[in-house]
Amino acid sequence: MERKLLKLGNMRIAIIGLGLMGGSLAFALRSLCKSIVGVDTNEDVLLYAMSEGIIDQKYDRIENALDAVDLVILATPVREIINTINWLSENIQQSILLMDLGSTKVEILSAMNKLPEHYEAIGGHPICGKEKSTIQYADPGLYRNANFILVKSSRTTSRMRIVAEEIVDVLGSIPVWMTANLHDRYIAATSNFPYLLSNLLSNSLPKLAGDVVGPGFLGMTRLSASSIEMMMDIVITNRVNILERISEFSDQLTEVKGLLENKNYVDLESILRNGKLNYLEVVEKSHKVN
Amino acid sequence: MERKLLKLGNMRIAIIGLGLMGGSLAFALRSLCKSIVGVDTNEDVLLYAMSEGIIDQKYDRIENALDAVDLVILATPVREIINTINWLSENIQQSILLMDLGSTKVEILSAMNKLPEHYEAIGGHPICGKEKSTIQYADPGLYRNANFILVKSSRTTSRMRIVAEEIVDVLGSIPVWMTANLHDRYIAATSNFPYLLSNLLSNSLPKLAGDVVGPGFLGMTRLSASSIEMMMDIVITNRVNILERISEFSDQLTEVKGLLENKNYVDLESILRNGKLNYLEVVEKSHKVN
Repeated sequence: MERKLLKLGNMRIAIIGLGLMGGSLAFALRSLCKSIVGVDTNEDVLLYAMSEGIIDQKYDRIENALDAVDLVILATPVREIINTINWLSENIQQSILLMDLGSTKVEILSAMNKLPEHYEAIGGHPICGKEKSTIQYADPGLYRNANFILVKSSRTTSRMRIVAEEIVDVLGSIPVWMTANLHDRYIAATSNFPYLLSNLLSNSLPKLAGDVVGPGFLGMTRLSASSIEMMMDIVITNRVNILERISEFSDQLTEVKGLLENKNYVDLESILRNGKLNYLEVVEKSHKVN
Repeated sequence: MERKLLKLGNMRIAIIGLGLMGGSLAFALRSLCKSIVGVDTNEDVLLYAMSEGIIDQKYDRIENALDAVDLVILATPVREIINTINWLSENIQQSILLMDLGSTKVEILSAMNKLPEHYEAIGGHPICGKEKSTIQYADPGLYRNANFILVKSSRTTSRMRIVAEEIVDVLGSIPVWMTANLHDRYIAATSNFPYLLSNLLSNSLPKLAGDVVGPGFLGMTRLSASSIEMMMDIVITNRVNILERISEFSDQLTEVKGLLENKNYVDLESILRNGKLNYLEVVEKSHKVN
């Protein structure tokens, strides 16, 4: 099959799902491509995106939105991304470039790998975001300096790779290639499980302890405000890796509990020093990047 | 014993320990009282505090700093506060008003209760702070709108109470009276245990997962940068309450693990919804205050 070269400036891009991530992407890409087609099931979101100049055209269903579209970017919660890939696979004969922004990758890539050959497709996950997940918080600078994980599927052509890298480049993100398996294992540790910790900590607040809630507690529980729909999809599609993190963390808690019970403050202090060191290293690394 | 009235404007105040909390307090009170005497074992800290106009006089030892002092405020880590109270108890005959800012209260109050009768003393804990604990981050507005827990000791006279409330008032904090026992139980839930979670999460980061570290992880591990000396004192003096939080949280983790293992997503979602709701309530309450 002939694959004609595509330049971002000539491309018509459909973004499916106008939440924080899709909305911020549309915002950032609109002036750099031919046009942005926005798809969302929520009419208020579409009207907002049109009135704020975030998209050029609005559709409530993907089947109406694909006319002359070169690239489709899926930015809904993970299970909806998978459903959309399966639906496209069965219903659309048009040659389409396809990319997603889903927060877990194994199940999405598994769906992508089954796409017919007229699709070119790649997995993506920008490591940025906020706990506010609606388009009202969309920010064209959201992706700047963030790592943008790219995952090769069996439908990733060199043209698809070039388009994806150009998008990552114009967003000011840093492309990082990774397998879906490694991505999901690591993201369980850095994002999915920390969300669970944050939420459970919020759950565990004694009713009368509100008077001694300070900035530390608020910072630790902030993630619990994330979209439940989005997070449930993540938890469901990355279940096994999250279970492993829970087990490992529970073991750590048990160890610390034992040290405290035995008043073994020397070993406890050495654990805390290591945690502090780890944090400072991670911050230093992220400052080098950002 | 005659207790003469004291007005903040006429008071000479010694602040023992010029870290973030003591430094910020000195900064905020200096123009409102007669003079601030700063005590710290670190000469660089004292020189910085003098050069920045945070204190009027500097001493490296408390025994040299008490001349004509009306009020002593202890702002060191918790165990040093306890040592200082015990030392004052045995060595200083002078009539002194004494207040502390320690992050746990039961052991401090127990030391205060043993002070001779020429002492007037009260426990305090302002619910504010940062993970940066040095005087370089001192901020005269740090205490503004924060709850300031006040704990009555058997040495709390009405004059001591009036002075403490005046200080809380001029700092722009909100006075909240509480027993030492309740304070320590609640602060374990809202501050001490969240610190441990943050630190253990930082400890648990897989070496190669750095590429997928985003703002969520950094926010969740920020507290692990807290001063180890300060945190060890807190952990040691609030051991029993922290152990109880660890047990309860471990049970929660085990429950979530079971739900995930059994793919019981309905019950898991209801837990997550409750955590989100709790968080939004806490935030709303803290906005009402702040």
